[in-house]
Formats: sequence, C-alpha cells, structure tokens
Amino acid sequence: MTRTVIESKTKTVIIGFDEPFCVIGERINPTGRKKLAAELEAGDFSTVERDALEQAACGAMVLDVNSGAVFTNKMADDPRYADNNFVEPPLMRELILRIQAITDTPLCIDSSVPGALEQGLIACEGRPLLNSVTGEEERMELVLPLVKKYNVPVVAISNDDTGISEDPDVRFAVAKKIVERAADFGIPAHDIVVDPLVMPVGAMGSAGQQVFALVRRLRDELGVNTTCGASNISFGLPNRHGINAAFLPMAIGAGMTSAIMNPVRSVEMEAIRAANFLMNHDANGGEWIRLAKILEAVKEGATFAEASAAANAAASGRRGGRRSRG
Amino acid sequence: MTRTVIESKTKTVIIGFDEPFCVIGERINPTGRKKLAAELEAGDFSTVERDALEQAACGAMVLDVNSGAVFTNKMADDPRYADNNFVEPPLMRELILRIQAITDTPLCIDSSVPGALEQGLIACEGRPLLNSVTGEEERMELVLPLVKKYNVPVVAISNDDTGISEDPDVRFAVAKKIVERAADFGIPAHDIVVDPLVMPVGAMGSAGQQVFALVRRLRDELGVNTTCGASNISFGLPNRHGINAAFLPMAIGAGMTSAIMNPVRSVEMEAIRAANFLMNHDANGGEWIRLAKILEAVKEGATFAEASAAANAAASGRRGGRRSRG
Repeated sequence: MTRTVIESKTKTVIIGFDEPFCVIGERINPTGRKKLAAELEAGDFSTVERDALEQAACGAMVLDVNSGAVFTNKMADDPRYADNNFVEPPLMRELILRIQAITDTPLCIDSSVPGALEQGLIACEGRPLLNSVTGEEERMELVLPLVKKYNVPVVAISNDDTGISEDPDVRFAVAKKIVERAADFGIPAHDIVVDPLVMPVGAMGSAGQQVFALVRRLRDELGVNTTCGASNISFGLPNRHGINAAFLPMAIGAGMTSAIMNPVRSVEMEAIRAANFLMNHDANGGEWIRLAKILEAVKEGATFAEASAAANAAASGRRGGRRSRG
Repeated sequence: MTRTVIESKTKTVIIGFDEPFCVIGERINPTGRKKLAAELEAGDFSTVERDALEQAACGAMVLDVNSGAVFTNKMADDPRYADNNFVEPPLMRELILRIQAITDTPLCIDSSVPGALEQGLIACEGRPLLNSVTGEEERMELVLPLVKKYNVPVVAISNDDTGISEDPDVRFAVAKKIVERAADFGIPAHDIVVDPLVMPVGAMGSAGQQVFALVRRLRDELGVNTTCGASNISFGLPNRHGINAAFLPMAIGAGMTSAIMNPVRSVEMEAIRAANFLMNHDANGGEWIRLAKILEAVKEGATFAEASAAANAAASGRRGGRRSRG
C-alpha cells in the first residue's frame, strides 16, 4: 500500500489511497503577491504567520512554503537582490523557522532554487515534502540527491526538457522516467507524489478527463500518490469555485490523493470533505458533521477561517476538559 | 455505443456514455406531498403544471410523472378510492395529457401499478421512459411485456424477491438477471437504464464507493446506462446539498449517465453542469457560462427557477430575432 509520510516535529500526515485527501495549503507564496513580497523584504512575517494559522485552522494538513521572491527595493543598492539564487536560500530558512515556531502542521518546501530547497531541508524539523523535481535532466540531477540525502518525499511534475506536453501519454511517460530515475538514487516510489499537470478546461475540453485517466494510470501502473494545482482547471472561467468544487471530488474518485490549493475557501473544502465521506474516509461522518456546524456559522456572517478556528478552539477546550474560549 | 432514446412528440433526449448527464425531474410525485395529492383529488393540476415548467426551465431533460396517490376524501364514500389500482390508471392518463399539453420535455411514466403504466403509455406521445421494473418475478412478468409492446426504454431497479441487498455483488446480479430476462422478451440492453440503488452514506460508510464500483461494472460488463435517486445518498445528514453536490460529479466520473432528482435546486444542478464540462460534454463551456449568468441573478435575489426561465426566454427571443420578454 502506497503511503507517503510527511512529518513535523510532532505531527504525522500520510498521503495514501486509503487516507482522507491531503490538502496542501498554497497561500504562503510571494509569487504574484507583491504586497507579501514587499513585507518579506522588510522582514515582516506577520502575513505569513497569519496565513499559516488560518490555513491550518481551515483544514490544511500540510503547508506549502514558497520562497519565490526577489527584493525590488534592495536591488537598487545591491543587484544581487534581483537574483532568486541569492534571495531565496536565506529567505526559505527564515520562513521555515518562523512557521514551525507557531504551528505543528508539517511543511512542504517549495522553490525552483536548489539552494533554497537545501536551506529549507536543513531548517525544517521532521520530514517535509520537497516541491519539486521535474523530468528535466538538470533538475533531476540537482534535486534527487537532496531527496536521497535528507530522506524526504518529493513532488514530481510531469514536464521535461521538451516542455509541458498536451498529450497525457507523454506526461505519463515523464512521470515514469522520474520514478525510474529516483529508483536509481534509491528513492522508493512511495516517496514520489506525481503532479500530472492540470490544464484549464476552458482552453482544452479534454482537460478533466485527461487528469482522471492519468491519476488512475499513475496509481495502477506506478503505484504513486498524486497531487495537482487544483485551481488551474478553472482558469479563465466564470464561477471558478463551482468548477473546482466538482473537479476535486471527481479527481478524488479517480484516485487523486492530494492537492495544492487554497483551504481558506469553504466551497472547495466542503467538496473535499463530502468526497472523503463518500470514499469511506470519514468514519461515521464526524468530519462532515463538524464542517456542517462551521458552515452554519459562516451563514451567520463569520469567515470560514474564523468559524474554523472557533470550532477548533472549542474542541480543544473539550478535549482538555475545559473551554478555552472566553 | 449505448444510447437510450427518449422522445416527446417533438423532442429527443439521449442517455448515453458520451452525452451530457440526463437530469430526470422528480417533483411531479404526490407520494409524501399531501397537499399535491389533495389538489389532484380535487382535479387541480396547477401545481403539477407549474412543477413541469419550472423543472424544464431549470434543466430537467426528462420529467418523471408519478401517479402514486389515493384519494382520502372520496374514500369515505367509495372505498375503491383507497386503492392505488383504482385511482392511478385514470390519474396517470390525466397527468400525462395535461403535462404534454404545456411542455415538449420527454416524460418518464412512474408507477408501481401496471395499469397506470399502460394508461400512461397509451396517453403519451413519442417514446417515454417507463419507471420501473425490478428483479421480482411478478414484476418482470407484468412490466417487460409492456416495454416490448410499446417499444420504450425502462428503468430497472436492482432489488428482487429477496428485497434490497446490502451486498453490491448481489445488486449487480439482480441487474444482470433483469437485462437477461428483458433479452428473452427481445428488449435490447440499451433500452434498460439500471438503478443500482443508492444507500445513505450516513448509515453505510461504503455506500458511495459501492455505487461508483457498481456503475463502472454495469457499464463495462452489461453495457447499460444507469440512473439513481441521487438524494438518497445524503439521507439523515446535515447540509445534504453539499453531499449531493459531491456525489453527483463522482458518480458521473464513474460513468453514471442519469439521475432522478430535483432540478430546481441550484447547488446540485451547478455540480452537474460542472461535471458535464469536466467530462468534455459541454463544448466550449457554453452551458457552464450560461449557468454562471443565471447564478449571478440568483445572488441578486431571484429564485433559480425564475432566473432560469428568464434566461431561456431571453435566449429564445434572440433565436427568434426579437425579445419576447416585456
């Protein structure tokens, strides 16, 4: 049975065929968030810390930590700050240290800079997920030794030196190549989480069916867990949440075991909790009933993050024999 | 390729593996609707007519017409009105005539009384769906000859003289028995739409997975279309729409081709439209974009039925070269 083990110092998460769907929170990512990038440049980690706590409260089981920034104010004085290879390694280290100081949720170290991946691996307690390797030769040669050295699982993205293929058979072949190359390094298939790449269904009508078929093949033929950037499916379309909220259950039904996504959005999280229940991964519907109460509070005006945090606090108060809420 | 053809006098609907999911509107059904039963007893068909138009406007492709009533006021004077076999045949005839007078949506004739099925078949123009036969010997002997005589497709429900089995293998075997018995009557498999029976996931944790596996087997091994009473899955649970809205896409992904359900509820219809798009059964997302506009109107206070009817009127005005709305 394929089980990908991800750990913080004190908490273990399993990605697996017989486990609830693993939600990997995507929000800690300065790419495309100018305000966040500017805060990080100024040494302000308050948004990162809030995003970490909110995502965990809303049900993120793993937090992706992406260090993809350059420092636009500092680069005028020192051009090295325009270079991700210079900025990201110390930034990743700082991000990891700050986040694991305030949450026990396991982390996913996300960068295109190998030095940032390694700084994250050094700073991170437990067994983080590494994000990512691709089928590009240079990338495999840089990242797979880190995966082996630090004994961590890794996200494998199905593109290679020829780019991203629109042909799902080619994407499968790229995934297979990465799994085989990893095996040469002594890395087992259960430590590879393949992202088969989700195309926007608005641009390619077969995008959904491609993913569902690929996920089944990756599971049946390679025995690997899978992940995706779920919201890509609805890129460019109106009412995106509605597409995402159908895509996720369908992908879960096809065998997808995790996704990198925004857990602060209740529509998608509701779809995932329902799908977990329907996959028999929510004993007696306990998680569903808990969510239904949170959604009641949302109807009355709370944000999903607030209502989730309040429910967690109440439950932890009950577990401790007293309520911690005022 | 399995194609189940259902027709009104002027309109054809195909249930098939490569077709958009077929929504069969369930609302015209006096069972459990006391007020509607009393109206029918008084010869008042206004609710039926409104339900027919509303369901069609919201996207029902077929309208189920169930005559399951007894007449509680009349039975004091004439005890025959306590008997479904007495009440339903003329009631079904009247229902069919009234409904097909105001809509071109194909119909599904639904009764447990064989005489009502036949009266419906006589009254109905086109090629209605018959609902239903089961694996019970008596029922097969009564209903299959009607299916053959009138050359219509039929819903086959997977229970038999031993009742409803919790074992999906038994339910598959019952479906197979019905398909084989129908073949003895000269009825082809593409005219059988199997209902594998949906159990409540709150009572049986494996209920979802059972259905998904059964639908795949029914499709791969028997080559038949499938349907279900979709809302059964969420019976007894809080926030039922959320369960239904994940169940339907997952069932569609597994190969389910129709459901008997309430199309006036936007949450479930949104999930189905998204699933159609993700199955590549909505060219260029035209239906999705149309729905997104309707949901915008719902956010501004319209009911889903009102907003759908207005969108249909506007579209039909455009097609006719002028707007028919005032």
